Amino acid sequence: MDNFTFFNPTTIDFGTDKEQQIGQHLAAHGIKKVLLTYGSERIKREGLFATVTQSLAAQGIEFVECGGIVSNPVISKVREAIALARTHQVAAVLAVGGGSVLDSSKTIAAGVLHEGDVWELFSRAATIKAALPIFSVLTLAATGSEMNNGAVVTNEETKEKFAIGSVHTFPKVSIVNPALMQTVSRDYLVYSAADIIAHSIEGYFTAKVQPRFQSRLVEAVINTVIETTETLLADPADYDARAQFAWASTQALNGLTYAGTAGFSYPNHMIEHSLSALFNVPHGAGLSVIMPAWMKWYHSRNPQQFQRFATEIFGLDTAEQGIAALEKWFDKIGTPTRLSQLGITEADLPATIENVLGNAKWFGIAEIYTRDVVSTILKNAL
Amino acid sequence: MDNFTFFNPTTIDFGTDKEQQIGQHLAAHGIKKVLLTYGSERIKREGLFATVTQSLAAQGIEFVECGGIVSNPVISKVREAIALARTHQVAAVLAVGGGSVLDSSKTIAAGVLHEGDVWELFSRAATIKAALPIFSVLTLAATGSEMNNGAVVTNEETKEKFAIGSVHTFPKVSIVNPALMQTVSRDYLVYSAADIIAHSIEGYFTAKVQPRFQSRLVEAVINTVIETTETLLADPADYDARAQFAWASTQALNGLTYAGTAGFSYPNHMIEHSLSALFNVPHGAGLSVIMPAWMKWYHSRNPQQFQRFATEIFGLDTAEQGIAALEKWFDKIGTPTRLSQLGITEADLPATIENVLGNAKWFGIAEIYTRDVVSTILKNAL
Repeated sequence: MDNFTFFNPTTIDFGTDKEQQIGQHLAAHGIKKVLLTYGSERIKREGLFATVTQSLAAQGIEFVECGGIVSNPVISKVREAIALARTHQVAAVLAVGGGSVLDSSKTIAAGVLHEGDVWELFSRAATIKAALPIFSVLTLAATGSEMNNGAVVTNEETKEKFAIGSVHTFPKVSIVNPALMQTVSRDYLVYSAADIIAHSIEGYFTAKVQPRFQSRLVEAVINTVIETTETLLADPADYDARAQFAWASTQALNGLTYAGTAGFSYPNHMIEHSLSALFNVPHGAGLSVIMPAWMKWYHSRNPQQFQRFATEIFGLDTAEQGIAALEKWFDKIGTPTRLSQLGITEADLPATIENVLGNAKWFGIAEIYTRDVVSTILKNAL
Repeated sequence: MDNFTFFNPTTIDFGTDKEQQIGQHLAAHGIKKVLLTYGSERIKREGLFATVTQSLAAQGIEFVECGGIVSNPVISKVREAIALARTHQVAAVLAVGGGSVLDSSKTIAAGVLHEGDVWELFSRAATIKAALPIFSVLTLAATGSEMNNGAVVTNEETKEKFAIGSVHTFPKVSIVNPALMQTVSRDYLVYSAADIIAHSIEGYFTAKVQPRFQSRLVEAVINTVIETTETLLADPADYDARAQFAWASTQALNGLTYAGTAGFSYPNHMIEHSLSALFNVPHGAGLSVIMPAWMKWYHSRNPQQFQRFATEIFGLDTAEQGIAALEKWFDKIGTPTRLSQLGITEADLPATIENVLGNAKWFGIAEIYTRDVVSTILKNAL
């Protein structure tokens, strides 16, 4: 087990009707004016916007609206929001949405207090020294962003999808009401399942130091995701399955499963970020394509852990059986397992490989993920 | 899954040599003078006291010493420490020790800022409104106190062993260096294993709402404790086993395994507290006696979960087999499973039952744990 420091100060307020408390949470932090960020107008149609703004009003908190944040959120939108936040001198950012809205909001919160251009925080030309307080009402369980300090944003000009993180960008409070997720589409449910599994397996398979206790935590997450996804596909209104799915999603990327591990990397995310940046595919859909393809290339480098995965997740004996079972399960739930299902063909591979090689430097694994290796993995996914 | 609020702001700084950083952690919180609490003089003989005080000195932090805290810590000692803290106007409490030192320190930290007598916080005549900042360097992994806000202290006069907890009593920073635990005696290692398992199973078996994900987290803890205890009994110097044991111990009672569960109680702790209060037995030793006895009485009330326990922990089929396997494992590692091993005989039962019935009111489960029931459980343990 490696040395580590674990710190996660985010309050998770979890359960039915909890969004009605968001005004009180902001008031408890002394907030009087907030930038309210969201994606589509769906939250207005479904009444969540009204609930949230009424809760703010009840505490005398003013808000400035910034909607229109898209999946695979873009830095141009973040820049627009930062300008708005500065003009109105808001004291906090309140994200109402999924991972894209949350990640944008963390970036806005840090960007408002950064003198230069906000992309400098992603390109590592500058570091985050402060951020406005961040709050969230989560509407999609997938990225774990509600209980961590990370944010991933795409630069549309440079076609780069990079991440930031800092002790300043943990949400103060995240509301997780599984009932708000009942209207998530079937597609986004299964993409989310793939995303959570991806967060779980990156460290699990790649870490040079991977204590068995941490593996057990990861397996608890994956087994719960598999079980509850199947329940939800049969009955989207099953609150308990929705709740366990959401909580497992939060646990998958709040730092606990990575505590004491060392030497891990995020190759699946690295490759998928290129698919999102170039072809704007849903992140989870890209991941369910990449994971089996990557596993087929990688498993001989960590055979014991792949065998463990096969046994603990699918009750099977060999690494190959475990990988095949995961791919089959992705097919079963209806998340893609082939690039062709994303509309990406062999003709797109050269540009994709080029983009991945750029990411590999940023992810610090360019020595392993050479042109040949990336090509092999992507061809596995054709 | 029940509604819940999860909040745990404690920083865990985990690994080798981390105790050398304790001065920096206090300095980062602006502390200039601290009450340094500990148990026996062992920490002076083994050099930990010197390491810690040198780390404080390097940051210009003064300390006032308060040693002599005993296992099953007592309120009289806490009162003495509160007086000392007030006289010297310390700004924080630094616990260097195990659960008893930590629990005493939390109580001291709250007691210093409470106008009345500190036992009022336990008897529920008053609530905790503030506490001095609490820091710790852990020397024994068992109680989970390093990452929660709870504290259990015995009132020697009234023979009551009660608990407090408050948002103010989370440690700011806890240092967990598994290497410091290498000198823990064989007895205290196995008592600690029993204590961690007890923390894990109370909710697991008694909760009316127990999401399967939470059960999986609990099983990850128990399986890790069983595995690493056996490794440590064979080789006390196995750092990795010591580390996983310690981290599992922290996870067993930091709130995560209880998130979303409801309607649980702590009957094993309730009964054991009487054994500690009356006969001053080591807490973990009392628990390993009570758990199988309680399980034999309780399992028919939650047969599915007991069957799950048998399967997931021991690979067995029935509730009865699982209970027998746990008792056999306690015997194997050498933690007691009979009251007689604690020097408690049938003649002691009437007074014990009387004390447990007092606890039952405090624990809020007096309706279930009647005189007959408590008698049955204790007789199972003879």
